[in-house]
Amino acid sequence: MPDLGPNAALIGQPGGRQALDTPALLLDLDALERNIAAMAAHARAAGVGLRPHAKTHKSGRIAAMQVTAGALGVCCATLGEAEVLAASGIAGLHITSPQVTPPKIARLMALNAAASGLSVVVDHPDNLAALDRAAAASGKPLDVLVDFDAGQGRTGCAGEADLAALVRAAVAADALVFRGIQSYSGNLQHIPIRAERRARALAAADRLRGILRRLGETGIAVPIVSGGGTGTFDLDPEAQVYTELQVGSYVFMDVDYRRALGDGRNAPPFETALFVATSVMSVNAPAYVTCDAGLKSFATDGPAPEVAAGAPPGSRYEFFGDEHGKLTLPPGAARPALAARIECVTPHCDPTVNLYDVYHVFRGDRLVDIWPVDARGKR
Amino acid sequence: MPDLGPNAALIGQPGGRQALDTPALLLDLDALERNIAAMAAHARAAGVGLRPHAKTHKSGRIAAMQVTAGALGVCCATLGEAEVLAASGIAGLHITSPQVTPPKIARLMALNAAASGLSVVVDHPDNLAALDRAAAASGKPLDVLVDFDAGQGRTGCAGEADLAALVRAAVAADALVFRGIQSYSGNLQHIPIRAERRARALAAADRLRGILRRLGETGIAVPIVSGGGTGTFDLDPEAQVYTELQVGSYVFMDVDYRRALGDGRNAPPFETALFVATSVMSVNAPAYVTCDAGLKSFATDGPAPEVAAGAPPGSRYEFFGDEHGKLTLPPGAARPALAARIECVTPHCDPTVNLYDVYHVFRGDRLVDIWPVDARGKR
Repeated sequence: MPDLGPNAALIGQPGGRQALDTPALLLDLDALERNIAAMAAHARAAGVGLRPHAKTHKSGRIAAMQVTAGALGVCCATLGEAEVLAASGIAGLHITSPQVTPPKIARLMALNAAASGLSVVVDHPDNLAALDRAAAASGKPLDVLVDFDAGQGRTGCAGEADLAALVRAAVAADALVFRGIQSYSGNLQHIPIRAERRARALAAADRLRGILRRLGETGIAVPIVSGGGTGTFDLDPEAQVYTELQVGSYVFMDVDYRRALGDGRNAPPFETALFVATSVMSVNAPAYVTCDAGLKSFATDGPAPEVAAGAPPGSRYEFFGDEHGKLTLPPGAARPALAARIECVTPHCDPTVNLYDVYHVFRGDRLVDIWPVDARGKR
Repeated sequence: MPDLGPNAALIGQPGGRQALDTPALLLDLDALERNIAAMAAHARAAGVGLRPHAKTHKSGRIAAMQVTAGALGVCCATLGEAEVLAASGIAGLHITSPQVTPPKIARLMALNAAASGLSVVVDHPDNLAALDRAAAASGKPLDVLVDFDAGQGRTGCAGEADLAALVRAAVAADALVFRGIQSYSGNLQHIPIRAERRARALAAADRLRGILRRLGETGIAVPIVSGGGTGTFDLDPEAQVYTELQVGSYVFMDVDYRRALGDGRNAPPFETALFVATSVMSVNAPAYVTCDAGLKSFATDGPAPEVAAGAPPGSRYEFFGDEHGKLTLPPGAARPALAARIECVTPHCDPTVNLYDVYHVFRGDRLVDIWPVDARGKR
């Protein structure tokens, strides 16, 4: 039984949202359900599969909701995430980064022995050979996707020749099952102008389509083509090359994705479902107040948090130390009182979630449950 | 029994440092012991007390080492840290931020009932009155320090008149015990030029000395004057106003403090004791390799991590996503191989530690123990 933290007694109580001990991570369950349903409907209509990225939520509960809505399984950024989600009963796990060290390969084989439908990417012949040897020794074949670098330069084979050679090696390996290709354009997801994002996403897909055609001409079938993300969720199906999408952040949305996906639309196509609640702890300055959520309660790799409730429009939140935030009010606005509750949209949702042990799950003002962030800190 | 993670079987084995599953937080126990001893000797020689800040390490083991070396107790940034450290047997806990919300005050009273030598800061008359009522209801007096804003503007009374009024209110309160004043100059700790840091630290202390003298003239004794930090550890005793120092980062050091404290000296006065170990996971780019520690394994609020081992001098580490780092080699240098181990100095030590469940405790190459980060994520 995980520790549900200081707010466990508020589950089911009225007025839970204002009574919460802070800083706390809030999940709007209605918005989450609508986001999961909207992406599932989009994928069904587009005829593309979904294997949403669980690095965003690290939650067995949310992964199960995605699978129930039709997802093929979920993606994991780390082996530790896959171990935790497999233990929570999720099948169809795909690990999106190469697992190359001896301890990671040993853990991967143990997971493969227990899990159903596990796959992992490979981007180097030495790693492919090591996985083949380990899978042979384990007695159970391992499903692999060959990773292609679509332009981000982070992982993946760097060009078509290397990719084709590694695909052939995967097909030929005794204890590996070649399942397909991963081509993730992480560098395109946050491009703020939709037209530019579309042009570059379609160009990446065109290149990939040519590669797949030439592989096919050598007799190699590629059952799975995995890629895409929340920023290109409606562009990737148009490209008609991916068989499944690795969308992650759509479940929650965050400051960055609200801006990127809001371009050219009246509103972003997904709702903000994730917030951090913070309380005012000091009110001695004339133009701002100090809150209790600092850089141990928000990701600091992206934009600042955005105030969603508890302070007037135009209020600005900045980091003010490990456990402090500075909430500056617009000129002339009244300052929130000591102990007042502020809610913020999370700056970058994935690493923000990783700072919390639990989600406080709300329907409106009612705390309906507290869910553990099952794979927090798992590597 | 906390989960010690995937490296538990390596405790006591030879060659543990290279065999470690990564990303992993490494603690050099010899360097930690020398840092704790050096600060204790410095404080003894200077005739000043130490109440080191535990927000840096969040560890009952390390707090106990500091107390054994002579510390009066430890400081905590959050009530959750204090709860965890009290449960691990540490006395003399001081909470350095105001606790103002009803749930926090309820938890504070529960902790005060159980803990020995607990104190908390207060910076507002409404909070003082609320704490007084709660302490009276609890039946046990609460020790308070009045918080003075020394210039950072984060928490604390904003000027001498407000401070003096709040001190008088604390002295007069039925269920509170006025123990002294906190005056923390967080804005001075990282000033890179020692001469400037010294001038500003001494100016802040001069101002505080005048305030204390005038309080004394009204018959108010101030037993505790708490302040200072790692950046001003050798300047604050010179000021002869603080009775105890809140130094935190000296136990580990990090990229920022190595630079700040290195100015004007042959070497920083404390050793780097904390590292993150990462492994090379992809080697397909000519000028860099991709490692497995990204922005969920390092704090991102400060400078980049610095490479300490495993790559040639001049190598540069950058964030490359949640679970990826980009290690760029100097021109002409050989790239580390797939699965090679790299160790980095942590960018900002406090929030980096908060991303890990455990410390891997080394003496040289030998993993001697694994310690939980007891108060990780505790608010």
